[in-house]
Amino acid sequence: MLLQIDLQAEEPIYTQIMHQIIEGIAKKELKPGDDLPSVRSLASDIGINFHTVNKAYQLLKQEGYILIHRQKGVVIHPDGVEKATEAFYEKLRRKVRPLIAESISRSVSKTEWEAICATIYEEIEPEEEQ
Amino acid sequence: MLLQIDLQAEEPIYTQIMHQIIEGIAKKELKPGDDLPSVRSLASDIGINFHTVNKAYQLLKQEGYILIHRQKGVVIHPDGVEKATEAFYEKLRRKVRPLIAESISRSVSKTEWEAICATIYEEIEPEEEQ
Repeated sequence: MLLQIDLQAEEPIYTQIMHQIIEGIAKKELKPGDDLPSVRSLASDIGINFHTVNKAYQLLKQEGYILIHRQKGVVIHPDGVEKATEAFYEKLRRKVRPLIAESISRSVSKTEWEAICATIYEEIEPEEEQ
Repeated sequence: MLLQIDLQAEEPIYTQIMHQIIEGIAKKELKPGDDLPSVRSLASDIGINFHTVNKAYQLLKQEGYILIHRQKGVVIHPDGVEKATEAFYEKLRRKVRPLIAESISRSVSKTEWEAICATIYEEIEPEEEQ
C-alpha cells in the first residue's frame, strides 16, 4: 500500500498518515502482522519531519492498530484490531453528531446523508458483510 | 439556548461552542436573526478566555452561521445558513470517510452505522422532512 500525502492539504499530515493506514486495514490491504516502514524511513520517503510520522504511529499504537517493536519494527497489530467497544461507539457518536448537525443546518436530508455514507461504505468495503 | 461547556473534555472548548451553536441552529432553537451574547459576555459567563470565544465566533462567521456587527452585536445569520454546496459535500465526505474506515476496521456493520446515524438525525431533527 502506498501512502498518498498531500503536503498542501488543510488536514494535518499526521492525521493523513493515520487515516490512510486505518483505511488500508479496513480495506484489508494491510493485514494483521504486515510490516510498516520505520518512522525514519517513512519520514525520509515522504520528505517530512520524523516527529510527524512518530506522532501518527504513537496514536495508531494507542488506538490498537499497530505494534511498535524496538527490534522487529512496526507491524499492523497481529491480533487484528479490537472490535468496537462501548467507548468506541461513544467516541464515534460524539464525532458524527456535529457533522449531522451541520448537514441538517444546511438542509441535507436524512436520505441524502445515508446515500453519502453508503457510497463511502461500499468504496471501503466492497463486499457486504452483515 | 444554554451552552454546556465541559472544561475537562478532550474536545477543545472553541469547537464545543461551535458545535452547540450549529446544533442549536439545526434544531431551530436558534433562528435567523437571533442574538448571541457578545464575545466578552460569553467568555465571562463560561469563565473562559476571551480568545477562545472569539475563535469560535470567527469560524462560525467564516462558515456563514453568524454575523458579527460592530454595533448590533452577534446574530445568527439573518438569511439563514446557506444550503449545502458542492464544497460542503466534499468537506463532509472527507470528514465522514475516516470515521467509516475506523468503524469498518472495528467490524461495525453498515446496518449498525446507519442505525447510529439515524438515531442522531432524529434527536436533532425530530420531524422527518423529506
